[in-house]
Amino acid sequence: MASSPTLFVLLIFTVTGTAIVELTPNFFHQSLINHHKNSKPNIPYKTQFFPQLLDHFTFKPQSYKIFNQKYLINKKYWDHGSPIFVYTGNEGDIEWFAANTGFMLDIAPKFRALLVFIEHRFYGESLPFGKDSYKSAETLGYLNSQQALADFAVLIRSLKQNLSSEASPVVVFGGSYGGMLAAWFRLKYPHVAIGAVASSAPIVQFDEIIPWTSFYDAVSQDYKNASLNCYEVIKGSWAELQALSAQRDGLAKISRIFRTCKNLQSMYSARDWLWKAFVYTAMGNYPTEANFVMPLPAYPVTKMCKIIDGFPSKTTKRNRVIAAAKVYYNYTGTTKCFNLENGTDAHGLQGWNWQACTEMVMPLSTSNESMFPPLSFEIEELGKFCMNRYGVMPRPHWITTEFGGYRIEKVLKKFGSNIIFSNGMQDPWSRGGVLKNISGSIVALVTEKGAHHVDFRFAKKDDPDWLVEQRRQEIGIIQRWIDDYYADF
Amino acid sequence: MASSPTLFVLLIFTVTGTAIVELTPNFFHQSLINHHKNSKPNIPYKTQFFPQLLDHFTFKPQSYKIFNQKYLINKKYWDHGSPIFVYTGNEGDIEWFAANTGFMLDIAPKFRALLVFIEHRFYGESLPFGKDSYKSAETLGYLNSQQALADFAVLIRSLKQNLSSEASPVVVFGGSYGGMLAAWFRLKYPHVAIGAVASSAPIVQFDEIIPWTSFYDAVSQDYKNASLNCYEVIKGSWAELQALSAQRDGLAKISRIFRTCKNLQSMYSARDWLWKAFVYTAMGNYPTEANFVMPLPAYPVTKMCKIIDGFPSKTTKRNRVIAAAKVYYNYTGTTKCFNLENGTDAHGLQGWNWQACTEMVMPLSTSNESMFPPLSFEIEELGKFCMNRYGVMPRPHWITTEFGGYRIEKVLKKFGSNIIFSNGMQDPWSRGGVLKNISGSIVALVTEKGAHHVDFRFAKKDDPDWLVEQRRQEIGIIQRWIDDYYADF
Repeated sequence: MASSPTLFVLLIFTVTGTAIVELTPNFFHQSLINHHKNSKPNIPYKTQFFPQLLDHFTFKPQSYKIFNQKYLINKKYWDHGSPIFVYTGNEGDIEWFAANTGFMLDIAPKFRALLVFIEHRFYGESLPFGKDSYKSAETLGYLNSQQALADFAVLIRSLKQNLSSEASPVVVFGGSYGGMLAAWFRLKYPHVAIGAVASSAPIVQFDEIIPWTSFYDAVSQDYKNASLNCYEVIKGSWAELQALSAQRDGLAKISRIFRTCKNLQSMYSARDWLWKAFVYTAMGNYPTEANFVMPLPAYPVTKMCKIIDGFPSKTTKRNRVIAAAKVYYNYTGTTKCFNLENGTDAHGLQGWNWQACTEMVMPLSTSNESMFPPLSFEIEELGKFCMNRYGVMPRPHWITTEFGGYRIEKVLKKFGSNIIFSNGMQDPWSRGGVLKNISGSIVALVTEKGAHHVDFRFAKKDDPDWLVEQRRQEIGIIQRWIDDYYADF
Repeated sequence: MASSPTLFVLLIFTVTGTAIVELTPNFFHQSLINHHKNSKPNIPYKTQFFPQLLDHFTFKPQSYKIFNQKYLINKKYWDHGSPIFVYTGNEGDIEWFAANTGFMLDIAPKFRALLVFIEHRFYGESLPFGKDSYKSAETLGYLNSQQALADFAVLIRSLKQNLSSEASPVVVFGGSYGGMLAAWFRLKYPHVAIGAVASSAPIVQFDEIIPWTSFYDAVSQDYKNASLNCYEVIKGSWAELQALSAQRDGLAKISRIFRTCKNLQSMYSARDWLWKAFVYTAMGNYPTEANFVMPLPAYPVTKMCKIIDGFPSKTTKRNRVIAAAKVYYNYTGTTKCFNLENGTDAHGLQGWNWQACTEMVMPLSTSNESMFPPLSFEIEELGKFCMNRYGVMPRPHWITTEFGGYRIEKVLKKFGSNIIFSNGMQDPWSRGGVLKNISGSIVALVTEKGAHHVDFRFAKKDDPDWLVEQRRQEIGIIQRWIDDYYADF
């Protein structure tokens, strides 16, 4: 399955795109957002809007434009002066993150905490230019992490003032990209937040800090750990798919065996559909049934591998992997046919594509050890794609210039404090995270069996001990930060 | 001397303006810049230019504009891999700061340090839009401290790469506004600089962190310490000046006794001329003869007070203070008449006025304890002035939101490291500085007899012991940062 220039652009847009783009569930925002735009998740928060400044870092007349930034608030457990827990929103509707971050609601009574979820600019309803927000680089230019962090700082300060509770300690929480923002917020705004809980935050997945192959190697490792045969079947399935596509009527045959709703235009749609399923199932390899990106059973990677391993020995690899992928796409069993090529562009995806084309350049490629087809990352190709699409070039070294990352243990060993980096090793993004304690108060909580910010999910009665213990540790550390803060006061 | 609306605008522009504006020598940039534009100071640096990005924090097509940022470099003492000392340039020509920061050159051989002085965007020759840079808020909008800090980070990273010396530890140095930048740089870019020496950096002179009267109270205290009579004469002189201006031909009389080159248009020019002399002499109250802002004798405040106290008892207060002011304006004795109202606007002054109208809002007012006439600070008035002049409003809470400042001891006690805040108590800006140790590695070096970043001046053989000792401590601390860095490596 040799790569061609045409393929390459496709790769950026879909596969690399997928992976770069979907730190969290962007790829599925389309349906998710549609879903909860129709039926909002049932969460106990009041919606508010804050008049936010368009550009914190220039002072041109147009920089002063004000837009409505959405945030959710819950005062039920709060006593005046007690802590404020803020979720630093990531790339999507803030309700969705609130619904998937039950941890904060679970622990609020213990801390008498005010809960605030701030929506990230340019996502959800926080659109600085309304429906024109995504029109061009002229408007999208204001969508980036530094502006988002400044938004959080300005909003939090104003909120505390309005509550006449300036002395309340603020702890920020975030998962995935939101976790990166939480960690960076503590580093850049230590005067606003006394600590940060950054779950599954791949802050070193930039530049050349870690091997570019680590992400897909980690996905592959998950499947290999479940079953060596499973890994090998998946690894071998791509060639079968390729061979089938080379046959007369190959695409029609592929469409048939994938049960697509419409005939496919490209075999790569089928390939990427599988690819995605394996990646997202690894990210969502939770110990209990969950509906994060898609409804999934407990330990879905094992489930997929059981299906792959369970077929009679003559079954083709491609048929096995298609069956496995349905764990991801059709766990509820309600889907009759699959849309592999419907490309409507929800704002979430668009927004992250923009960020990936400017600042969030996270190079991902595959190694021979991975179970995926060859994929390389070329900054020149990304540049061509972004210039063509948005008229601007990526700044691939900017994030590491602005936020650091190289030699992070040494830099932060003697600088900064009060950050929890939590990671589950099932989650391929963990490889871009902080996996070792840096200092006494910049700590790594790593679970072998954890997946993408599993610690942030609502506690369940059948949660395994390691997860209960991880959350217990987090609560203890947060308690210490707060006790220290009040003791100093 | 009641304040009137008309007066008020004048005050913003001159007196408040003076003080806000002239953290360092802005007020005199006009002559100074003219001076060394004709005859550059004789400093051992090579001039280079770096292709710098216009806007680090947005990604619009125009954000990608490149301009030439000037920096000075001296490799004489440097060994490959050894430390890099960077001066974070402030509001003016970088040569001038290089000439007045001999400390770095003095200590370079000991550390085998590379020396780099980076010019601040929009000052000197680092003009992003050439001669149009000051045209309007559209261009000036990019002039602010956060963009400047990002410039430093990008330039330093690139420089280290070009020198193939990525592992060299970087220490940043800065005085006055440059000292604020150095301290903030260490706080925001700990991955770029291992430590910061911030001399006379009034990072808490914002918002309502310290009393707004502290600056002029501190100036007054300097004179009171020199002689109570001196303080009282100055304090009483304004009323005499006011009374004189109320006479028939008052302005002509004032022009005569002030020996102005042209007849004055306003008595406030005379008042402000005196006011400035007292402020700048306090800032430059050095223990040895110096030519920082103006040529001055050793301990010029004492000198002024000796003149004031030395007159026969019947001499008017106004005549005494005029004579004293000449220590400042005419120490060399070469001036025949004085220009009190020549208002050509050099870029240095313009640039700082812009910054003071947007982010650098440092409220200053006078108390009854001060020796100055009543001066109040009203953000509404500043807003009117800035809107009228530039078409934009100040953001008076932005610096404390972005960089903190409130409860700084508590915030930084457990966050950050490796900053020296040095201050001399003769310098009125010291009251807006960090005057107490915050932690084991964020330390305050305070000298009772020091003035505005005196520690950064070239060592002289007649330097007093306390100054020698202060520099010795600074060298020791810097050495420790560097030793720690190499030990970790």
